[in-house]
Amino acid sequence: MTKNRLEAFSDGVIAIIITIMVLELQIPHSPDWSGLRPLIPKFLSYALSFLYLGIYWGNHHHLLHTVKRVNSAIIWSNTNLLFWLSLVPFVTGWMGENSFSRNTVILYAVDMLLCGASYYFLQKSIMSEHQFEGDLKDALEKSNRKGIISLVCYSAAIPLAFVNSMVSGIIFLVVSVMWLIPEKSIEKALSDR
Amino acid sequence: MTKNRLEAFSDGVIAIIITIMVLELQIPHSPDWSGLRPLIPKFLSYALSFLYLGIYWGNHHHLLHTVKRVNSAIIWSNTNLLFWLSLVPFVTGWMGENSFSRNTVILYAVDMLLCGASYYFLQKSIMSEHQFEGDLKDALEKSNRKGIISLVCYSAAIPLAFVNSMVSGIIFLVVSVMWLIPEKSIEKALSDR
Amino acid sequence: MTKNRLEAFSDGVIAIIITIMVLELQIPHSPDWSGLRPLIPKFLSYALSFLYLGIYWGNHHHLLHTVKRVNSAIIWSNTNLLFWLSLVPFVTGWMGENSFSRNTVILYAVDMLLCGASYYFLQKSIMSEHQFEGDLKDALEKSNRKGIISLVCYSAAIPLAFVNSMVSGIIFLVVSVMWLIPEKSIEKALSDR
Amino acid sequence: MTKNRLEAFSDGVIAIIITIMVLELQIPHSPDWSGLRPLIPKFLSYALSFLYLGIYWGNHHHLLHTVKRVNSAIIWSNTNLLFWLSLVPFVTGWMGENSFSRNTVILYAVDMLLCGASYYFLQKSIMSEHQFEGDLKDALEKSNRKGIISLVCYSAAIPLAFVNSMVSGIIFLVVSVMWLIPEKSIEKALSDR
Repeated sequence: MTKNRLEAFSDGVIAIIITIMVLELQIPHSPDWSGLRPLIPKFLSYALSFLYLGIYWGNHHHLLHTVKRVNSAIIWSNTNLLFWLSLVPFVTGWMGENSFSRNTVILYAVDMLLCGASYYFLQKSIMSEHQFEGDLKDALEKSNRKGIISLVCYSAAIPLAFVNSMVSGIIFLVVSVMWLIPEKSIEKALSDR
Repeated sequence: MTKNRLEAFSDGVIAIIITIMVLELQIPHSPDWSGLRPLIPKFLSYALSFLYLGIYWGNHHHLLHTVKRVNSAIIWSNTNLLFWLSLVPFVTGWMGENSFSRNTVILYAVDMLLCGASYYFLQKSIMSEHQFEGDLKDALEKSNRKGIISLVCYSAAIPLAFVNSMVSGIIFLVVSVMWLIPEKSIEKALSDR
Repeated sequence: MTKNRLEAFSDGVIAIIITIMVLELQIPHSPDWSGLRPLIPKFLSYALSFLYLGIYWGNHHHLLHTVKRVNSAIIWSNTNLLFWLSLVPFVTGWMGENSFSRNTVILYAVDMLLCGASYYFLQKSIMSEHQFEGDLKDALEKSNRKGIISLVCYSAAIPLAFVNSMVSGIIFLVVSVMWLIPEKSIEKALSDR
Repeated sequence: MTKNRLEAFSDGVIAIIITIMVLELQIPHSPDWSGLRPLIPKFLSYALSFLYLGIYWGNHHHLLHTVKRVNSAIIWSNTNLLFWLSLVPFVTGWMGENSFSRNTVILYAVDMLLCGASYYFLQKSIMSEHQFEGDLKDALEKSNRKGIISLVCYSAAIPLAFVNSMVSGIIFLVVSVMWLIPEKSIEKALSDR
């Protein structure tokens, strides 16, 4: 019951975050195609963040699936994650508005770093409340390792933005592709039980 | 369980998309009736998209009703559909802002085409995970045929917008009417089981 | 199942409508109290619409409680109701922006009339799908009568706005008070079964 | 059932309130770091309100957990609470826009006072519908006492804003910390049953 409401609230917040980002795509007053051109970087940053939030939703979904008991540490780790996710529309908008220029890419990487770290702590607080075993434990530890790799990538994206902000953009894409099919092992471990 | 959360997330996103569109109806500063006149095309495009999103919600609802197992392909086909649906407020706003002028109608048709194709792939990925039989299979195949007819109509609406953008507008309306009572056969097939 | 998702979708849409209205209360750039004064009519119109939407949510909640089978007529009556409710933020904003001036009050009354009529049709479509009996039937018929009285009041508010728009405002308040404790009889009829 | 929908609706509204606040963080047009500086007070007021709303969600969650029967008094106390919570984005935005200047802090304290009082009445109306006993009764009474302490703090924050608005800001933080781990006793009382 408690867990269902935590899922429902998180789903609600993520659904709203993913959707209000589109409000940053301001509607051009002119019907010319050229009016859409300045929107291209905004659209690309929107698509990237939509992908990230979709991945977070999918992983969050699978992670909460493993939860049997909700305690205060889990609730507050989850709220902390939602806070940093809620800033995604802002950092996405700034990055799109300024065509992926250096500072904006750095701020995006910082928010991704904070989201990633928050997810890591949420997973840790779930693991310390439950005694997972066997395949499920392996799957969660594999997901933890992936999380740490992502944090390293986001950290690398910050200095690399000084070289070329496109390099950082490519890192973001690579990380997202790494996560795109993440759930298989937890999925399998859960259905094996 | 997994399926319920997929439904809940999709419902949330569609509910938000359908509702934030109204924010494009900017409130006139004057209390004169004449201040509302420029809003008429915006209102019409809003009503059209509300109808479309209502239809997508209804069909999505019936489609997910047939799902027993959720896999990664289904999750990502669904996220892909939500992405193109999330652009509906933008293309609707541009079309309304510019009184259904040619370019805006074309972009609207392109987004409808992408939404329709995404829905088609979602249905395909659900059908390949499940072995539907009998009436339910017939109903889904009938829905697939309707989907393909819609894609043909949206494709036709693009060149026809060069003739007269109102022709494209009428095509959108005709497609929506075709979908308005779509669920009977799946509904019947499900209740017969 | 089907009914739960109809409830969830309606709840989502009503929750969003009730909440995005607050975005019309634009934040003054100055910290002076005088900066808040122009917001008073906006706040009053916001509070009135919040009350109305809260009542609609409560009644809708009780009405759907009586539903056992969902058919297409019910789905589309419900979507139709949500459409007119989704315009509430617009008519509320226009009325607040222009301090309840005549035209804006008339448009508000027209939207209320359309919402009320849509609710009436939703109730009718639910009643024709189910064969209610005894107390529950009485309760729904009582609610129907109240709905018709409201429609008469909204209709009266339109010409009366030409006399004095405050008279119409008072009618809106009186109707809302009439609905504030509406659920007792359906509640009782349901718990008696 | 009825209770589930009350939870779902409240979750939806709180999720939207907590998320649309981020729209007040307007995206700077320049990519310079200096463009972010004016956003610092806005970000701080956003973070404070996110924390408050997270606490309200957590406590509301636990409070509704104790509910067995929903009556009209509970529905309307809950709607009343949601109304004052829905004004949080406005008072947060005004306070952030004007760097926590005196008047804006007072209005924030007034809204917090109204939210706190509404929560208190919601708890009272739940307690008068149910006959709680033993640990659960103690836990709710403890929560009531905490609620009254918060109301006293918010009331004190109003005159203290005339001395220094930062003092009021610190009071808000202290109250939030007091609530951060509030659920233990209700949690324990519920799991002991």
